[in-house]
Amino acid sequence: MPFRMSDMVGCEFPLFAFSHCRDVVAAVSRAGGFGVLGAVSFTPEQLETELKWIDDNIDGMPYGVDVLIPEVQAVDHSVTADEVVAAIPQQYRDFTRQILREAGLDEGGAAPLGGAQQPNTSLGQELLEVSFNHPVQLIANALGTAPPQMIEAGKKHGIPVAALVGAKEHAMKQIDAGVDIIVAQGGEGGGHCGEVSTIVLIPEVLQAIEDAGADIPVLAAGGIMNGRQMAGMMAMGAAGAWCGSVWLATTEAETHEIFREKMVQATSRDTIRSKHRTGKYSRQLRSGWHAMWEEAGLPALPMPLMMLLSEPALRTIDKAAVSGNPKAQELCSYFVGQGVGLVREVTSAGQVVQDFKQDFVAGYENLAGALE
Amino acid sequence: MPFRMSDMVGCEFPLFAFSHCRDVVAAVSRAGGFGVLGAVSFTPEQLETELKWIDDNIDGMPYGVDVLIPEVQAVDHSVTADEVVAAIPQQYRDFTRQILREAGLDEGGAAPLGGAQQPNTSLGQELLEVSFNHPVQLIANALGTAPPQMIEAGKKHGIPVAALVGAKEHAMKQIDAGVDIIVAQGGEGGGHCGEVSTIVLIPEVLQAIEDAGADIPVLAAGGIMNGRQMAGMMAMGAAGAWCGSVWLATTEAETHEIFREKMVQATSRDTIRSKHRTGKYSRQLRSGWHAMWEEAGLPALPMPLMMLLSEPALRTIDKAAVSGNPKAQELCSYFVGQGVGLVREVTSAGQVVQDFKQDFVAGYENLAGALE
Repeated sequence: MPFRMSDMVGCEFPLFAFSHCRDVVAAVSRAGGFGVLGAVSFTPEQLETELKWIDDNIDGMPYGVDVLIPEVQAVDHSVTADEVVAAIPQQYRDFTRQILREAGLDEGGAAPLGGAQQPNTSLGQELLEVSFNHPVQLIANALGTAPPQMIEAGKKHGIPVAALVGAKEHAMKQIDAGVDIIVAQGGEGGGHCGEVSTIVLIPEVLQAIEDAGADIPVLAAGGIMNGRQMAGMMAMGAAGAWCGSVWLATTEAETHEIFREKMVQATSRDTIRSKHRTGKYSRQLRSGWHAMWEEAGLPALPMPLMMLLSEPALRTIDKAAVSGNPKAQELCSYFVGQGVGLVREVTSAGQVVQDFKQDFVAGYENLAGALE
Repeated sequence: MPFRMSDMVGCEFPLFAFSHCRDVVAAVSRAGGFGVLGAVSFTPEQLETELKWIDDNIDGMPYGVDVLIPEVQAVDHSVTADEVVAAIPQQYRDFTRQILREAGLDEGGAAPLGGAQQPNTSLGQELLEVSFNHPVQLIANALGTAPPQMIEAGKKHGIPVAALVGAKEHAMKQIDAGVDIIVAQGGEGGGHCGEVSTIVLIPEVLQAIEDAGADIPVLAAGGIMNGRQMAGMMAMGAAGAWCGSVWLATTEAETHEIFREKMVQATSRDTIRSKHRTGKYSRQLRSGWHAMWEEAGLPALPMPLMMLLSEPALRTIDKAAVSGNPKAQELCSYFVGQGVGLVREVTSAGQVVQDFKQDFVAGYENLAGALE
């Protein structure tokens, strides 16, 4: 299979797995796909440990790293972590504690201050340097335009730089910035997302690239959970598929079993594009968490304030959910796309890759059968 | 090309064109696609005239009719038209007049009562009877579950019945009702739509059909503007594509040239899923109309009240837009999907079909090239 992505990043099959879990990254690459470790929440030391583990467990197959934290980097340098935390209104702190209290959880767990550290504006650069000490084949920038130092570092090391976009206008900025690969993510995808759907965004971005006289491959993201969809996106001109949600329902994933079971039960209408987790619109599994904030009539705080409140509380909720607390099981949620409605069972990441390959061929045959 | 739809409805190429305009229906069918006339707003006499014209201009090619008016049929029989109209709050009448006045338009045109007729609960049945007096090859039901009399009439005449769905749950009802074809429309599509995107909805509906042990072809709708997308949907297992928006930017369409120019200028982010036209969520080109209602903080009235207000006013606005009134040009809008961002020029409906065929082959080649 002479896939363009095989030449660029060395994978057998252009199925990209974005995951915060090293086990998923290694399993996908070993099966012929391409794992990309989301490293945004790691310190340089932690990332070093993760990448060392991946190197030891990936059988020499290629992988990539997603390294940037643009929002934190964009914080005004003169603002201290304490000042950021002090900007969270008391009403919001109280309501977060109330959510936990109603689930019978210790209010202490709601202290929204544990995660607030002095912003490290050089963290992205440090993570990049750690990554280049490992045999990474791709660097990805998850949010915002890839900065010049990233593009330059990629060129210096001969490693392609990928960037995620949710709108044609963002793709045009990435083209100008000089990225090597564009990941075009439709609004049905999990996590931070725009509003334009995948099948509209892909041709729109391909057209923008053509109009700019550029030659940049586009990976399709948003809603893709199987190989027939992947074949469909490649018929439209994509060079491969970039998936996140599908790996969350695998045995290797960082998700807990209560959440995985919620994924199996969910339909495509059980997600919500909400600001009530990070402060920006991101698609998540709809849960009691969103219902309570909506009922309270409290609009989301901006990023990073909403995250500083929500993440510690949701970690407490996750732990309680796993321990069997039914109210916490109602509240627990995570970033996931509409494709969750296509999850029928929890399986291994390697099996998902095999299923994709088989379904990809079936997708091709669907089309070939019509043209025979 | 042994398309399943060729066997079922006699078309050469399974590209379905939903249009309120007989010229589009005839042009698409003559070019090898399959035109479907949206007959919801016609009287039986008007429909007879339209179908006679189509018969005289379609060169014997097959076509279909979309006949139902489920919302109007669902109106309580004991409620008179006057009572329906009286239910429109004065504040909403006044605001509609204000919108027109600010565009320099005669308030008289805002009288929201012209369109209100006594609901004719047998209209759908009458339209169906008119249709069967013509060589129609497909009957479609645009909204809600196909009623038993429609399924029976289809069987009696040997004509397949199609129904539109925007969610898996609705598809399951249509399967139970016995429809012959399901049109699965993603939330990126124009007009009344759900929230699930096309690439998630298609596999979800196909799975529901398989789970039910049924064998019903699915046409993909929502966001499809070219043959590569159509090929992609068919790789995913769809039996063809059902398109609406793409025909609005053709020279034959019922749209006026000001709106067509707005379509060419629009990006995929220039649509809105709003209740401020019909009373139910429908996707439209975002215009000053939506901005004014939102700024006024007036939530949409339920269907049909919102329609009784908006349609006469928007017709007045359309006329003024064509006459060169700049404010009316800002206000004018129509039902259109996110795919509007892919419209680059106004061309003929026949040319659109030819382009689809060519791009469909290109889409197949995109995939075949990867598997050689």
